Amino acid sequence: MAVGIKGLSSLRPVHGVRLGTVMAGIRKADRRDLVIIQCDEGTAGAAVFTQSQFAAPPVLLAKAHLGLAAPRALIINTGYANAATGEQGLEDARACCQAVASHLNCAVEEVLPFSTGVIGERIPVDRIVSAVPAALAAASAEGWNEAASGIMTTDTVPKGVSVTLTAGGREVTITGIAKGSGMIHPNMATMLSFVATDVAAEAAVLQAALKRVVATTFNAITVDGDTSTNDALVLLATGRSDVLLESSGPVWDAFVEALERVCRTLAQAIVRDGEGATKFVEIQVTGGRSAEECRAVADTIALSPLVKTALFASDPNWGRILAAIGRAPIAPLDTRDIVVMLGDACVFRNGAVDPGYSEEWGRRAFAGEEIHIRVDLGQGDASATVFTSDLSYEYVRINGSYRT
Amino acid sequence: MAVGIKGLSSLRPVHGVRLGTVMAGIRKADRRDLVIIQCDEGTAGAAVFTQSQFAAPPVLLAKAHLGLAAPRALIINTGYANAATGEQGLEDARACCQAVASHLNCAVEEVLPFSTGVIGERIPVDRIVSAVPAALAAASAEGWNEAASGIMTTDTVPKGVSVTLTAGGREVTITGIAKGSGMIHPNMATMLSFVATDVAAEAAVLQAALKRVVATTFNAITVDGDTSTNDALVLLATGRSDVLLESSGPVWDAFVEALERVCRTLAQAIVRDGEGATKFVEIQVTGGRSAEECRAVADTIALSPLVKTALFASDPNWGRILAAIGRAPIAPLDTRDIVVMLGDACVFRNGAVDPGYSEEWGRRAFAGEEIHIRVDLGQGDASATVFTSDLSYEYVRINGSYRT
Repeated sequence: MAVGIKGLSSLRPVHGVRLGTVMAGIRKADRRDLVIIQCDEGTAGAAVFTQSQFAAPPVLLAKAHLGLAAPRALIINTGYANAATGEQGLEDARACCQAVASHLNCAVEEVLPFSTGVIGERIPVDRIVSAVPAALAAASAEGWNEAASGIMTTDTVPKGVSVTLTAGGREVTITGIAKGSGMIHPNMATMLSFVATDVAAEAAVLQAALKRVVATTFNAITVDGDTSTNDALVLLATGRSDVLLESSGPVWDAFVEALERVCRTLAQAIVRDGEGATKFVEIQVTGGRSAEECRAVADTIALSPLVKTALFASDPNWGRILAAIGRAPIAPLDTRDIVVMLGDACVFRNGAVDPGYSEEWGRRAFAGEEIHIRVDLGQGDASATVFTSDLSYEYVRINGSYRT
Repeated sequence: MAVGIKGLSSLRPVHGVRLGTVMAGIRKADRRDLVIIQCDEGTAGAAVFTQSQFAAPPVLLAKAHLGLAAPRALIINTGYANAATGEQGLEDARACCQAVASHLNCAVEEVLPFSTGVIGERIPVDRIVSAVPAALAAASAEGWNEAASGIMTTDTVPKGVSVTLTAGGREVTITGIAKGSGMIHPNMATMLSFVATDVAAEAAVLQAALKRVVATTFNAITVDGDTSTNDALVLLATGRSDVLLESSGPVWDAFVEALERVCRTLAQAIVRDGEGATKFVEIQVTGGRSAEECRAVADTIALSPLVKTALFASDPNWGRILAAIGRAPIAPLDTRDIVVMLGDACVFRNGAVDPGYSEEWGRRAFAGEEIHIRVDLGQGDASATVFTSDLSYEYVRINGSYRT
């Protein structure tokens, strides 16, 4: 189903990280639905979380715990999001953390909780707590691929990637997994993703690296404009490679470049597996007075249901793209400055259809699974790129079926 | 198809206005596609137009003409929008106006052009000009119902309404027609609508009355968030009732109330006939710190594809409504202040599911064709209401079929 994804190859272990995945019977039987990620003492953690006003109790708790202590374990459940559950939800999330902490003989603040699934219902704390020993016992450095499956909800494929780099004369590994295919819109983290590396870093430096790459990766994707109450991206650094990441220098440059590659691959995989997606679409806006302006235009195009249905139909309906540009919330400009390209075909410039454009060219640009739309605003040097999917019958079917 | 619309009853003539509708063969044969509305000398005109940066040549010309002279005629074609056509498009629109002006022996500025249809292609000026004499000859005070059909594009029903009021001891009539069912989002005018009255008014007073009612009517509807390049709302006042509308007083009060009724009926008819619509949805947000804040929350709910597909499924999936509220672009607030109602059922308050809520109640609230969602933000006294439709397979079918 997922556009251009062939299946997940074997993910590379990260020294100091072990993952265990089990069936806890959280919402459905016979489904891997509980993952515990353990990391060595001395691991640094960084994270970005949903900006939703309704950030779920596990998000609030994970954020608070990360502010208090370095992480030793992450506990992730699917089935229920533990969102809109109020005080009770906080207690439930804390109970799950406590169960892990008791077994690991660490403080509750050293455990971070994550949940994804139905909003508004309690998580079955008893069943989760009962499954914790098995999930801890299953822990393996080779457990990444199983964990990638264990965090899936409406995803049709598991998502993960490993990258190695040489820095400070030594090999460094970065491995990450992600889940999410609907309710996807950039507003900090937009799904669940867990990335680990064996680089050594202080938490503040790690956070800076994560912040640096998130804008062009996880925050550059959108499926339907909806931000979840639960989404989170976590980066763990165990230090086991003995390569020290500092806030500048060649190690920083190499690490950030590789981290961006990991995050871009994971983020794009989420779009490629977007609910009902049949197309993977890159929308690049250049020539803006600011990156925000470019982003506003790109978002307006990416979120227009009329553009998205035209993409689904492989219909180079550029009138809808112009209409979206025209209503984007930006300062007035002379539309004669604007150039619009569908793939390599220029369709609009000097305020009218390009005389060289033919419908045949546009149709060719929209025929494949991967579509590239470029808009130059002709006002300045700023640019922004977003990645999105189309709007298909299947999207309506997935989201328009009564909750099952 | 249209939700809760039974068909158009006979519209009431307005003294001083005559409408002629003909088949000009503009894009398809055997289709009424050209309407000319004539009004008596001395008629005042007011209008609001699309805010799109790509406002089409006919919009630019109508706006300019209205600034130069009182209107004598409106020429409206379907089939092609004459948008993104540059200088050539302006010349084409002017040629259509000139043809009408020549026959009426008036100045070209006294004719206003309107187009709707495919973007990016020229209008067939020759065919339109050839059909002008027939459209003028067909002019009749009884021509409103035919004109309502003549301006339709993807609409499934003609839309119109007449209201009479007593003001200054005399009877005043307001009759209006509208078209539009996709690419509908409030940003001034959002479709084509032509309203006429026999009240007497200066253009500035008429414009003030139109501006007054448009915020809560045409600007309170959204189907898919898309604003067209061509949309316009025109109000003509012939003065033939001899009732003078001034900028305050009992005539003003009665007229504005009646005009709002006309515009609300037309605007809601557009939503009821929204592309693929199976539900008519009112989203009311109260308790905000400002009307803008309430509107931002209402719009985010109304435009969320996840909420819209849940509405289509008659699924009271309030988690998606919370998620939309949570990501609305407003200042932070304590979510424990928020109350969410589905119809008469309170589903969320004090930061969690209302203990009295049952899924059965929610299902009942979402079962019918008309759905009412209320959100109280608990911050202040401001409020806003928007009207929208759901997102169905049919929406995707209509917009995801290659242009035909």
